Amino acid sequence: MRQHGTWQGDGIYFGADYNPEQWPEQVWADDVALMRRAGVNLVSVGIFSWALLEPSPGRYEFDWLDRALDVLHAGGIHVDLATATASPPPWLAHRHPETLPRAVGGGVLWPGGRQAYCPSSPVFRERSLALVEAVADRYAEHPAVVMWHVSNELGCHNVHCYCDVSAEAFRGWLRERYGDLDRLNDAWGTAFWSQRYHDWAEINPPRSTLTIANPTQQLDFLRFSSDEQRAQLRAEREVLKRRVRQPVTTNFMIGMAKHMDYHSWTSDVDLVANDHYLMATDPYAHLGLSFAADQTRSVAGGDPWLLMEHSTSAVNWQPRNVAKTPGQLRRNSLTHVARGADGVLFFQWRASRAGAEKYHSALVPHAGPDTKVFDEVCRLGADLAALAEVRGSRVEAEVAILFDWEAWWGVELDSHPSVDVTYPDRMRALYDALWRAGVTADVVHPSADLSGYRLVLVPTLYLVRDADAEALHRYVAGGGTALVTYFSGIVDEHDHIRLGGYPGAFRELLGVRTEEFFPLLAGERVALDDGSTADVWTEWLHPVGAEVVASYEDGPLPGVPALTRHRVGDGTAWYLATRLDEAATDALVGRLITEAGVRPPAAAPTGVEVVRRRADDRSWLFVVNHTDAEATLDVTGTDLLTGQPCGGTLRVPAGEVAVVREEPAVSGAVPAGEPSPAAAA
Amino acid sequence: MRQHGTWQGDGIYFGADYNPEQWPEQVWADDVALMRRAGVNLVSVGIFSWALLEPSPGRYEFDWLDRALDVLHAGGIHVDLATATASPPPWLAHRHPETLPRAVGGGVLWPGGRQAYCPSSPVFRERSLALVEAVADRYAEHPAVVMWHVSNELGCHNVHCYCDVSAEAFRGWLRERYGDLDRLNDAWGTAFWSQRYHDWAEINPPRSTLTIANPTQQLDFLRFSSDEQRAQLRAEREVLKRRVRQPVTTNFMIGMAKHMDYHSWTSDVDLVANDHYLMATDPYAHLGLSFAADQTRSVAGGDPWLLMEHSTSAVNWQPRNVAKTPGQLRRNSLTHVARGADGVLFFQWRASRAGAEKYHSALVPHAGPDTKVFDEVCRLGADLAALAEVRGSRVEAEVAILFDWEAWWGVELDSHPSVDVTYPDRMRALYDALWRAGVTADVVHPSADLSGYRLVLVPTLYLVRDADAEALHRYVAGGGTALVTYFSGIVDEHDHIRLGGYPGAFRELLGVRTEEFFPLLAGERVALDDGSTADVWTEWLHPVGAEVVASYEDGPLPGVPALTRHRVGDGTAWYLATRLDEAATDALVGRLITEAGVRPPAAAPTGVEVVRRRADDRSWLFVVNHTDAEATLDVTGTDLLTGQPCGGTLRVPAGEVAVVREEPAVSGAVPAGEPSPAAAA
Amino acid sequence: MRQHGTWQGDGIYFGADYNPEQWPEQVWADDVALMRRAGVNLVSVGIFSWALLEPSPGRYEFDWLDRALDVLHAGGIHVDLATATASPPPWLAHRHPETLPRAVGGGVLWPGGRQAYCPSSPVFRERSLALVEAVADRYAEHPAVVMWHVSNELGCHNVHCYCDVSAEAFRGWLRERYGDLDRLNDAWGTAFWSQRYHDWAEINPPRSTLTIANPTQQLDFLRFSSDEQRAQLRAEREVLKRRVRQPVTTNFMIGMAKHMDYHSWTSDVDLVANDHYLMATDPYAHLGLSFAADQTRSVAGGDPWLLMEHSTSAVNWQPRNVAKTPGQLRRNSLTHVARGADGVLFFQWRASRAGAEKYHSALVPHAGPDTKVFDEVCRLGADLAALAEVRGSRVEAEVAILFDWEAWWGVELDSHPSVDVTYPDRMRALYDALWRAGVTADVVHPSADLSGYRLVLVPTLYLVRDADAEALHRYVAGGGTALVTYFSGIVDEHDHIRLGGYPGAFRELLGVRTEEFFPLLAGERVALDDGSTADVWTEWLHPVGAEVVASYEDGPLPGVPALTRHRVGDGTAWYLATRLDEAATDALVGRLITEAGVRPPAAAPTGVEVVRRRADDRSWLFVVNHTDAEATLDVTGTDLLTGQPCGGTLRVPAGEVAVVREEPAVSGAVPAGEPSPAAAA
Repeated sequence: MRQHGTWQGDGIYFGADYNPEQWPEQVWADDVALMRRAGVNLVSVGIFSWALLEPSPGRYEFDWLDRALDVLHAGGIHVDLATATASPPPWLAHRHPETLPRAVGGGVLWPGGRQAYCPSSPVFRERSLALVEAVADRYAEHPAVVMWHVSNELGCHNVHCYCDVSAEAFRGWLRERYGDLDRLNDAWGTAFWSQRYHDWAEINPPRSTLTIANPTQQLDFLRFSSDEQRAQLRAEREVLKRRVRQPVTTNFMIGMAKHMDYHSWTSDVDLVANDHYLMATDPYAHLGLSFAADQTRSVAGGDPWLLMEHSTSAVNWQPRNVAKTPGQLRRNSLTHVARGADGVLFFQWRASRAGAEKYHSALVPHAGPDTKVFDEVCRLGADLAALAEVRGSRVEAEVAILFDWEAWWGVELDSHPSVDVTYPDRMRALYDALWRAGVTADVVHPSADLSGYRLVLVPTLYLVRDADAEALHRYVAGGGTALVTYFSGIVDEHDHIRLGGYPGAFRELLGVRTEEFFPLLAGERVALDDGSTADVWTEWLHPVGAEVVASYEDGPLPGVPALTRHRVGDGTAWYLATRLDEAATDALVGRLITEAGVRPPAAAPTGVEVVRRRADDRSWLFVVNHTDAEATLDVTGTDLLTGQPCGGTLRVPAGEVAVVREEPAVSGAVPAGEPSPAAAA
Repeated sequence: MRQHGTWQGDGIYFGADYNPEQWPEQVWADDVALMRRAGVNLVSVGIFSWALLEPSPGRYEFDWLDRALDVLHAGGIHVDLATATASPPPWLAHRHPETLPRAVGGGVLWPGGRQAYCPSSPVFRERSLALVEAVADRYAEHPAVVMWHVSNELGCHNVHCYCDVSAEAFRGWLRERYGDLDRLNDAWGTAFWSQRYHDWAEINPPRSTLTIANPTQQLDFLRFSSDEQRAQLRAEREVLKRRVRQPVTTNFMIGMAKHMDYHSWTSDVDLVANDHYLMATDPYAHLGLSFAADQTRSVAGGDPWLLMEHSTSAVNWQPRNVAKTPGQLRRNSLTHVARGADGVLFFQWRASRAGAEKYHSALVPHAGPDTKVFDEVCRLGADLAALAEVRGSRVEAEVAILFDWEAWWGVELDSHPSVDVTYPDRMRALYDALWRAGVTADVVHPSADLSGYRLVLVPTLYLVRDADAEALHRYVAGGGTALVTYFSGIVDEHDHIRLGGYPGAFRELLGVRTEEFFPLLAGERVALDDGSTADVWTEWLHPVGAEVVASYEDGPLPGVPALTRHRVGDGTAWYLATRLDEAATDALVGRLITEAGVRPPAAAPTGVEVVRRRADDRSWLFVVNHTDAEATLDVTGTDLLTGQPCGGTLRVPAGEVAVVREEPAVSGAVPAGEPSPAAAA
Repeated sequence: MRQHGTWQGDGIYFGADYNPEQWPEQVWADDVALMRRAGVNLVSVGIFSWALLEPSPGRYEFDWLDRALDVLHAGGIHVDLATATASPPPWLAHRHPETLPRAVGGGVLWPGGRQAYCPSSPVFRERSLALVEAVADRYAEHPAVVMWHVSNELGCHNVHCYCDVSAEAFRGWLRERYGDLDRLNDAWGTAFWSQRYHDWAEINPPRSTLTIANPTQQLDFLRFSSDEQRAQLRAEREVLKRRVRQPVTTNFMIGMAKHMDYHSWTSDVDLVANDHYLMATDPYAHLGLSFAADQTRSVAGGDPWLLMEHSTSAVNWQPRNVAKTPGQLRRNSLTHVARGADGVLFFQWRASRAGAEKYHSALVPHAGPDTKVFDEVCRLGADLAALAEVRGSRVEAEVAILFDWEAWWGVELDSHPSVDVTYPDRMRALYDALWRAGVTADVVHPSADLSGYRLVLVPTLYLVRDADAEALHRYVAGGGTALVTYFSGIVDEHDHIRLGGYPGAFRELLGVRTEEFFPLLAGERVALDDGSTADVWTEWLHPVGAEVVASYEDGPLPGVPALTRHRVGDGTAWYLATRLDEAATDALVGRLITEAGVRPPAAAPTGVEVVRRRADDRSWLFVVNHTDAEATLDVTGTDLLTGQPCGGTLRVPAGEVAVVREEPAVSGAVPAGEPSPAAAA
């Protein structure tokens, strides 16, 4: 996927979305002066400029953009140039109302927000590609342009369209997938509820129904919808690739978006870029940030990636948009770098005066540059400049968490045993336990090569393909350690139950057989005989070879096993059949880490995040202190942010960050001398 | 209603919905073998088979069903054969989009679930009756078929359709009901808010409005909607009756469904069949089950009825689908038999691999027959076989609860004094108090003959016809005892207030006059001078002949009566003007039982359910122990389930059930020598 | 605005909506007899009579109304005659379906409720004006008619219509407002998200979008919608004014309605009339009533106004419709009079038997005249008769609260920093603190002349025009005292941020500069260093000339100022940057009252409401005792309600009301000898 010359210049990219069209041209010069003061070296331009660039069909007006790019170039600011297709101008819907998307209930969704187009619309496709051609032709050789930015957050709002155009496209996609109707009927289980199709034309998207819609129809529609968004990316990329030499990307929303299967999109970008925002109501939002960063790196195959958007402070789209406290912007940004980002950009340069996102924070707030926010922006610019040498280095992990967007879609379909079983729930519970233990993880697709990991965690992998289940078995048999949590391995790719007892695909691996699920009521809690508690889920489980580690003391299934361990070949497979409380989850993950020989990069107090990046013969230790107290670590090297050497002991004040070039470098994720990964044994 | 020969064979029916089309034909032989092992003797076949039986319009494919019925017949399994009209195939909506129902807001409701047809659609009617003809012609003489099953849960999802076809049908129904527009205008009170109609064509269903919709328009639409469902039942029955000799039924949803007035449907079936499922969030779900069973028996006029569907364990359509604990399946099933069911069937035989209901429990779970569930199924089969002699016997009750679907519709219309006044609320409160007191009740329409009852309870009978109110008065005057709760007797059948003071229709009977309602705020609670508490409702009541039994101590109406008693002729009429807490409700019902001379069939600890069935010179006592402790009762006879005699003392272990053939038999609902019912006095 | 002869007869108007068409004509004579018994002298007739008056297009039937008016006139009851356009008859929608409104999602909103017409419909306009003509021509000279009542609660339900007819009207309104598209594009900030319009035809109402709709488009649509309702009022008034001599009014919904900018409507009525209902869940509902009355008086420019509707007891449209306790009806009614109403009417005379509002209380309840309600009605009639001399007197206030419907619309648009910031919240918090302090306030538009006030409170004035902000500055500089609360002065009339620091328009006045908002999470609470607490909102504020009065002790901004005071010219401007708890708000308002020299009309215990009306050389003190204890006040004069003199000490029993003609009269809002208002100094 990666091509040479992805990064221009020497160091880490730093910048923002820049929308000069929102401001009088007199402001532009100030902008560039402030960018230089802050150390900004890359801005994304033109993302929502279609309506200005093509005010009426086929009439292009590039003059203003010419001037804007020239001003930036003169100031030494690189440009990530958008294809400008993110949101069509009002004339498109006016002239072609059939391009408007429709909601599941049939209602038209109108312009006035953004992205108001049917993703399957041939009219939209044609008009948007014409624009890409025009923009690419105009700016392919512009010296400011170092990168191309396809659309924006593809699928953020319009991923599911139920209009007739989408219906026709869905039918085409299904023909491609199934070839003949019998296979579709089998896959969708249409023998149930008299749903057998006898003509492709009878099929529709899963529009509003009187009652539960066919789950496989829903699942296939989710697949189709992700593919349609990807098709726009591929089509734009193709146009660009015939015209430009710079790398092409688009901004993913890993860590936030459910409905795009980014694993299938990585081959369509020259580098992976991601947007990430904190959720104010998540008390562990900074752990969520680390998760998103680790997952983005994993989607990028371990290559450096670009943080295309985050926020300097509050956003505008949550019910209560909490501002960042002093130092938080820096910790957030450098955590992304610690976990593999070689660029840190924001939405947006200057806070808007008008429009839907005017309360979204920016690098230059409404109050101007004499602000906490701009001060922190400048400090971050200096930090990133000091980290130039880190660029291109990589993060290595001994633990993998399996993640699959299709499994997410599957597990959250309706009419399941319990609405409390959601995909992010145990995903984050296991990740957070690793984080608190100081362990870095990759977040990989079930089909990934697991051989390099000491430990593999498998939260709620409801839907799993045979091959992937078998691969996990081989991994364990080869000496690996795995933990599978409840409601995993239940169905195949058609959402068909794997019969004979749960958790179907993993029954043999785990040495258990569950005959029946016993979900708990809201607020119901059970005790285990190891002193822990659990809620949401229990099941009637029989060990079939597995050793019982803990059982229920009360609840509907007293005495029934809740946690088991199964020796398989040279490895061990654990099964957790209930939703353990946080302390018990931490304890279990701690035990697995120890037994699997996983070691964090450095010993650090809880709440101090430590990640190592490494390149050839060098290594850097990122230390982010999220606590209220100074942290002390045993590290030898030079703190790039302060320029100070640390001779064995590093002190990181509360809320601060250090990035130490380790001297000597540490080779590998864990210090030398540690046992090597299981599969390599 | 009842015809001879309704039941085939000697005993209780036992079985399930069987959907062979969901499985490869190789599985069918296993199915029959397992059915025989379990003691299954009746299965419902073909309920959702339309799309397979008529893959394209007018082309029928019966071969697979021929084979399935033959396999069942060869195994000695009887068949309840569906007309297969429950859900139309996709081609119907594709070719006739006008058959699709529309929601109140105008949105189309699409195929993909089930029952996606407009109940007033002439196209649907024509196509469905053609299918019924074809199926009946094919299988009228098939030896496996012992019963016909019209459609399935008629009106479960599509009872209210607001499309133009429905609008036209609604207008026709209104013409039929009112004859001329003046009468409709009077009934609907269209002088209010400028709603007077001057042409039938101006009338529509109560589609989405800007504000409160006309209540009588809403009420008539509910009546119309129930009638339209009934019309499908009658139409299918008529086709069947010209072709087949076996009894015809359909599965009601008494105890769960609000919108079908089953009292008006009983003449359209040869035997009453019912579906019932537990609600996981109801802590008294087993009392709800008993209520549904008693009501079903009452709808059946006291004749034996068939439990057409319940579940072996969890369902799939609740937010958290709680599994049944060991023994619960048996208690549930035998409670239905205790209360008059002569057959116990389930949805469904084998848990689906795919589709919307794959997580619904079944007789054969995903994990196969080596499971708790299948073990309990087999045990139940043996139990039911042991109960063969009970078939045809009847349950008698000394207490009646009045129930009217129209009153339910009326009381839950919008813009009423308080949203907390719902129909099931006090219905279940009174029923549950009876249950806890060990007393069996009938649940009858207000027009029923009350003369045989010692006590009549009238919860929230908001809407009541003059004749029914007068009948209650006559019942009391004749020596009966009645309890009426608040917000009863308020309106006539047009939802017109009965003027002059509440509770209009019952003012004279109760000897009170209420001038104003004083509903309470959410969470507000008042104290009564008898130590009890109440919430939701109070009213400014004046005794006009009635004796005050309890009054408010605080709240908005201190000193005002809350509970009164009025001597009328030879009887007594109580009025409860507030929502008593549970303990006080139990105490009040206990007092009424005592004063009215009602006696439970046997003394038993709380939580031990005791019901008597009787036939000619025999009687059987069903004892269901819902407690955690062994229960001891004074009974003499033989426990049919164990085959053991019990000489005066019956011990029923915690969670277990006994069915004792009483020796000697007890004649009547209560032991001989007790005072006879009021009306017979 | 006011014309002579607005009030007929000698005293206060007393009456109700009267809908004779709901009752047989035999009832009418009883009605008039009861009206006379109660002292009723004015009824509103014909409000929802269109369907009866014009049963088919162009065919009018006035006979019944002739008879009704004659019966009333014969009984000496005046009539406020409706134009009868409030709700069109069913034939209008049937013949002209394009007159039906559409919801934001596109769904049609059907007849069956009321007001089911698109407010921009030319067909509706034409048909309604034809009716107004016919009614006016018929009854212009009828001796019973003393007032004309245009439509009813204009915009109550149909204020926002999104149909194509409305879209076209919206475009016309925008052309009028902006002249050319460039100005509209600038105002709406369409450079953001590619929304630039190049043709008026591309513009639509803010229909359902995929994500956040353009805020200025929303704001302009709200302005347009209010204007469209006003246009109906003006059009009907114009027809009337050419035909009738009596005063013309319509019933506003001040205190309840958000979407009509009544400040712009006052010139369209000859007297201001208002409807007000209590919200059962508001524990301070009687303060809300006072607020609505004060605001209505202010909208009327201080002239006497008419309470057109309130309720004798419960309403029917809340979830739990709480009845009024004894005495509450009187307190409510006389509070309106105290605050400037010269008439007290109700919805409605006789409680309906049928229809959507049958559970709305009335003067004659379902239970008839032998009721608490009718007794209290009669007592109120006597009270109002005793107050005849008060008519035409005025209420004067030393405190003004600024209120602007546009600011309300603006602050509650979506994607703001916190959903907890609503307009009524601090409005009522400040008003309620004044109320508890016994101080009467005007509630005036920001453009009002402030020079007569000692104190001006400015809660949450998010959107403010330059001129209004400057006027407030001049007021303070001239010696006034003002308090501004958070999220004020943020945007201009286009919803564009005032750059340079918050609170933009008031930065200089307040001597502060806020660089960033720090809203709090739900339930989060912070402490201030003066012992008070706050929630919802904090901000990073820098004093720029202001003195710090209180700062945060904890939360996200410890040490940052929360309350400041700034000396400006001869006056003082306070800024409250957080949401203080109730006690602290009371204390702050108490301090402001004292410092500004505001004095309540009389010293009274908390919960005893005291308001003075004054005319020429007379004054009346209204004392409403909302407490459970007798209240004692120092007053000399005669209680008009009892006719008793009070020589220095007035005793008002718990729950009772006194209206004392002060002897000697008190001139001005405060007793003579007090310091005069700031601006007059």
